[in-house]
Amino acid sequence: MGGTNIAAGLVDDNCKIIRKNSVPAGRTRPFHEIVKDMIELSQKIIKEEGLEDSDVEKIGIASPGIANNEKGEIVYASSFPDFRNAPVAKEFKKYFPESEVYLENDANAAAFGEMMAGAAKGKSNTVAVTLGTGVGGGIIIDKKIYSGFNNAGGEIGHKVIVCDGLECECGRRGCWEMYASGSALIRQTKEAAKANPQSLINIITNGNLEKINGKMVFDAADKGDVTANEVISKYIKYISVGIVDIINVFRPGVIVIGGGISGQGERLLSPLREHAQRESYGSVDMKTEIVAATLGNDAGIIGAAMLWRQSK
Amino acid sequence: MGGTNIAAGLVDDNCKIIRKNSVPAGRTRPFHEIVKDMIELSQKIIKEEGLEDSDVEKIGIASPGIANNEKGEIVYASSFPDFRNAPVAKEFKKYFPESEVYLENDANAAAFGEMMAGAAKGKSNTVAVTLGTGVGGGIIIDKKIYSGFNNAGGEIGHKVIVCDGLECECGRRGCWEMYASGSALIRQTKEAAKANPQSLINIITNGNLEKINGKMVFDAADKGDVTANEVISKYIKYISVGIVDIINVFRPGVIVIGGGISGQGERLLSPLREHAQRESYGSVDMKTEIVAATLGNDAGIIGAAMLWRQSK
Repeated sequence: MGGTNIAAGLVDDNCKIIRKNSVPAGRTRPFHEIVKDMIELSQKIIKEEGLEDSDVEKIGIASPGIANNEKGEIVYASSFPDFRNAPVAKEFKKYFPESEVYLENDANAAAFGEMMAGAAKGKSNTVAVTLGTGVGGGIIIDKKIYSGFNNAGGEIGHKVIVCDGLECECGRRGCWEMYASGSALIRQTKEAAKANPQSLINIITNGNLEKINGKMVFDAADKGDVTANEVISKYIKYISVGIVDIINVFRPGVIVIGGGISGQGERLLSPLREHAQRESYGSVDMKTEIVAATLGNDAGIIGAAMLWRQSK
Repeated sequence: MGGTNIAAGLVDDNCKIIRKNSVPAGRTRPFHEIVKDMIELSQKIIKEEGLEDSDVEKIGIASPGIANNEKGEIVYASSFPDFRNAPVAKEFKKYFPESEVYLENDANAAAFGEMMAGAAKGKSNTVAVTLGTGVGGGIIIDKKIYSGFNNAGGEIGHKVIVCDGLECECGRRGCWEMYASGSALIRQTKEAAKANPQSLINIITNGNLEKINGKMVFDAADKGDVTANEVISKYIKYISVGIVDIINVFRPGVIVIGGGISGQGERLLSPLREHAQRESYGSVDMKTEIVAATLGNDAGIIGAAMLWRQSK
């Protein structure tokens, strides 16, 4: 379940997506309408693949916000206002009575997907960071999703890196996501481009800064634009502050970085590794790896489908 | 093992310390001298209690820095410079051949002690925070100590809350411990007292600000001193920033606050709970409890003695 689209995929035992499809989320509609779309989308894919509903052994659902797997309910998801202790599993069970249904937070499911079949394959401890509209987090400890005693943990975008800094939607000031999200990069670029009219950024966007995207900033920097380079270097520094925090606290085997910006690959990862090398605590031989996510948007689908394989 | 003293305790199956004692650490001495003192101290206590060395079934050692329990070595401890991959377990085994020997980082052992017999008893997920010279952390997940893939995790004092802030010994800028440790409170108080000559703090200390301790600041505040109240309110705010970070990321059942300042009890805890209530992420029914540690310096001894009872 995403704020824009709801996607479904049929996944085999080898974590391969055999067939997938999506529908617009219409996220402000009533719960029963949205869940009906989710079920119909799933049935359509199954049918297109020449299977019966009863062939599906396990169903995994990844939603924003807080999911309670024991109760089969989505407790709260700010982008789906009518989902309040929403009994998603029960609704699915009406149409898939023989299937087991699993629920999980989307960032956690994506982290689990990367561990099962992506960039964190084979690692016991992983923290996945998604630099998107916000900064999402998924924590895997001992090959299990960790989300605290009330399923609400893993909100690494909402730890403060600038005390009394920019106001965040969550109510705090100075959250990491206000500085390290994709949206933050856009905001930082706009401010810098306005302050530096000669910057290539203004030329690339024909003076309409609303057109800016993350890739444009990196492109302008690669062409030698001083302003763009300054923006990126500061932005990467903000990311690195949170990454080193994660290292000092979690020492995961690997940190997986996803979201649009992670497409920059080594351009982003190499300076992050340098920061981590220089700033992480103490003297240790074994270093946390920092890598880009490899599954993209499929991570959530694969992770959700594999939830039943979490070690207990 | 502490930087000032090394303490040992004989602990029974009910987490009770039957007898304990300590010797000066002499922490800059060679490894073999210090470990000899540790062994002799242990033997002395055993003998005083009328027992034989062979009556001791398990031995637990809590050290600063990084301990590798599998190898039985203290990998690195900045306050014990000669401890470099130091084979502590092997040395103990020479004198206690029939005992199992366990090693752990001191903050982790203390957190485990609080879980076994103190403020976090019965909780599966706990984060223990010690506000002392620095800010120490111990993380318990599923009743096990969590310290990452290289035993170096849990350094919650070294996550940044003020980007580009005060320089920390660890090499970063703006670490939580630079603002929330007991030492930070002293520094903040000195600065405020100098800037406000009329403050009661200057009277209490007879103008010698080197005498200040944390309790004096709270006492001055309770007597209505404006400067002291401002210092404390700001200091508690700094603590709360890190506490809410822990809640958003870990959602532990309980956060246990230890160190000298935790002796202030509700004076400290009540505003921390208010901050947490107001600032923690999203809308959840089950809240993380925030409580004071109850075992004090015994937490490390009890936790070390009980390491063998960690669930696998």
